[in-house]
Amino acid sequence: MCQLLGMNANVPTDVMFSFAGLAQRAVEHRDGFGIAFFEGRGLRHFVDAASARESRLAEWIQRYPIRSEVVIAHIRKATQGRVTLENTHPFQRELWGRYWVAAHNGDLKDFHPCLHAAFRPVGDTDSERLFCWLMQELAKAHCQVPTIAELSLTLGELLPQAARHGTLNLLLSNGEALWAFCTTDLYLLERRHPFGAAHLADADLSVDFSTQTQPSDRVALLATQPLTVGEPWQRLAPGELLVLQGGQRLA
Amino acid sequence: MCQLLGMNANVPTDVMFSFAGLAQRAVEHRDGFGIAFFEGRGLRHFVDAASARESRLAEWIQRYPIRSEVVIAHIRKATQGRVTLENTHPFQRELWGRYWVAAHNGDLKDFHPCLHAAFRPVGDTDSERLFCWLMQELAKAHCQVPTIAELSLTLGELLPQAARHGTLNLLLSNGEALWAFCTTDLYLLERRHPFGAAHLADADLSVDFSTQTQPSDRVALLATQPLTVGEPWQRLAPGELLVLQGGQRLA
Repeated sequence: MCQLLGMNANVPTDVMFSFAGLAQRAVEHRDGFGIAFFEGRGLRHFVDAASARESRLAEWIQRYPIRSEVVIAHIRKATQGRVTLENTHPFQRELWGRYWVAAHNGDLKDFHPCLHAAFRPVGDTDSERLFCWLMQELAKAHCQVPTIAELSLTLGELLPQAARHGTLNLLLSNGEALWAFCTTDLYLLERRHPFGAAHLADADLSVDFSTQTQPSDRVALLATQPLTVGEPWQRLAPGELLVLQGGQRLA
Repeated sequence: MCQLLGMNANVPTDVMFSFAGLAQRAVEHRDGFGIAFFEGRGLRHFVDAASARESRLAEWIQRYPIRSEVVIAHIRKATQGRVTLENTHPFQRELWGRYWVAAHNGDLKDFHPCLHAAFRPVGDTDSERLFCWLMQELAKAHCQVPTIAELSLTLGELLPQAARHGTLNLLLSNGEALWAFCTTDLYLLERRHPFGAAHLADADLSVDFSTQTQPSDRVALLATQPLTVGEPWQRLAPGELLVLQGGQRLA
């Protein structure tokens, strides 16, 4: 299994504090890490087959404030696929002139969908097969560029089919919206005015967000386990598909 | 225009020395930089819309030895497209279960090919349109995964068509081979045993490769302008397509 972190905000926001908490968990989840930052249509995508606790890249990311509206991060504990760069989440593809990024927590047994179109796995994980299949089926389902609501409907049909094969906690984004699908472990935290202080669950590190934010800011975080103590993390229900845009959930 | 750096070697090799030389040229070419490192099938892809002389990411890359068999780097001076992350080379796509990366020096006028298939630009540069068109046409030309020789033949037909629109110096790789196409400015340097010292053309920095190499090592470098003084850089001919694999040119 692995651990996930997702962030969606209505203003470019850094995730140094949250990523520092996630990286602490790389003692057990040491088989690589990755993090993708959307900046408008652009994407910064960092992966390393080393543990997030030992990687010099992870250390740099914790010290350098990259401000982004959508972030997806992952620390890997390999279940399927070797410990190599190409098996490290998040994965990236292009569809309809947008970059898409996905990271998966879980383990899909006997999941070998027919990949007959333009999306092929580079590595050998169930997670990348899932991502390629989702891209293929989204492309087939929509001949024009769909709206976020239309994409959400299609994902709501596709993801339960894949989830029959096992545990499927997924973060997916095209930079416009962040989709989160849960079968076992995903928690949502919505930070908004009045902002307060937060303390990491995994390290002796606190931040007072009231000094760094504007009253109109909205930040939503997703994680496979709550990253902070004393904040109202809400557990997603099994089978729930959550859509975030502008730092808040869509109906 | 922009500046390009390519490297292909038969053993994982770092490009810190060469990239330090390229980054010196970012005084004029300040509209972003990017560098892609293949590690087997995996890919590390770094982009920044800041100048390679000022970017903290570029500074980190110059200090951290990432060993790779194929590297493509680019510093941008914008001619078409805004200075944004999505317009920063090298560009990345997946085809036949391999990542492909391309960077372009030049300016293609009125180049608007019909992009009817699975590769669409995310940004608004002529260079990304060129890359998407090459991916589309390669995919159409080969129903099975082609060999390097077959890919080279197809690229040899496609690239001159695009070059009718203007200057086209291109580096392209799928991690297995590195293709270089030249219309005006590309230079090749092949380093092999006996290795000697090299001195950057743009900075007071030298390296003695004889202390860092084995007799069997082969390293080929490509650049829009020679990066070192006192080494036998060979200028490519207009219209020449060069294919490198294992640190040496293929016939």
